[in-house]
Amino acid sequence: MTSIAPYPAFEDFVPGEITTYGRYPVTKEEVIEYAAEFDPQPFHLDEAAGKASMLGGLAASGWHSCAIMMRINCDGFMNGSTSMGSSGIEEVKWLKPVFPGDVLSVRREILEARPSASRPQMGIVRFRFELVNQAGEVVMVQVNPIFFGRRTGEAA
Amino acid sequence: MTSIAPYPAFEDFVPGEITTYGRYPVTKEEVIEYAAEFDPQPFHLDEAAGKASMLGGLAASGWHSCAIMMRINCDGFMNGSTSMGSSGIEEVKWLKPVFPGDVLSVRREILEARPSASRPQMGIVRFRFELVNQAGEVVMVQVNPIFFGRRTGEAA
Repeated sequence: MTSIAPYPAFEDFVPGEITTYGRYPVTKEEVIEYAAEFDPQPFHLDEAAGKASMLGGLAASGWHSCAIMMRINCDGFMNGSTSMGSSGIEEVKWLKPVFPGDVLSVRREILEARPSASRPQMGIVRFRFELVNQAGEVVMVQVNPIFFGRRTGEAA
Repeated sequence: MTSIAPYPAFEDFVPGEITTYGRYPVTKEEVIEYAAEFDPQPFHLDEAAGKASMLGGLAASGWHSCAIMMRINCDGFMNGSTSMGSSGIEEVKWLKPVFPGDVLSVRREILEARPSASRPQMGIVRFRFELVNQAGEVVMVQVNPIFFGRRTGEAA
């Protein structure tokens, strides 16, 4: 897994920066396993049902795509960072199906970084993430804030 | 699992309707297993790290909460429906942590239902979903459209 770590703290996130990272191969077994547990709709479980659907083939649950992107982000920059979690998601767009055999990566843009007004030890970074397949197609877009701890007692 | 099925088609979704359904007990094993696979941040994996975090204890990944809500929705009304998938999520707010031992249900409000302009066999239903714990606290809010097949050749 390509990594752009270390990004330890709020101060390391520079608005305007665009980075690409990660390599996540999607297997049929994983697609079906995730769907069977959390999103058991026929087009996520069965090849024929997928072909008959708007998706055009057995395709991953959109929630599975979100989970895969989170994993790529953890491996890419969040593990070992000062991440403190998130308050939510501003937007998710599922633009194209994710099929078994796809190899996914993430293109990350830093939209905004601002200190928290209520928690001085924390800053809020807003990201725009694109999940991209091996053909360079953007299959999902997501915008969301993540909280990061700030450096304290250090020179800025 | 409480079910409000059958809701077979677009025409069955009436704007303004509010319904509550589902009963999903969250286990510590499942919280850790999901996080280990998709969101391996310390506060989703370890009791002590959870206690030291803003979450106040070992808590489920927000993506796990989304996945659980999808499962409750599948069991509650989507399985056996004419669901054709979704284009995305308008908003997710993680309002409170989800802890092992919580028992979750869903409160569903139908915000809007309109025929698709481009696909006459399809309609778009916008929902506001609240994920609610055993204390009646809303732990997550989500707004999103889902596509449903329309009845054709039938009296309205």
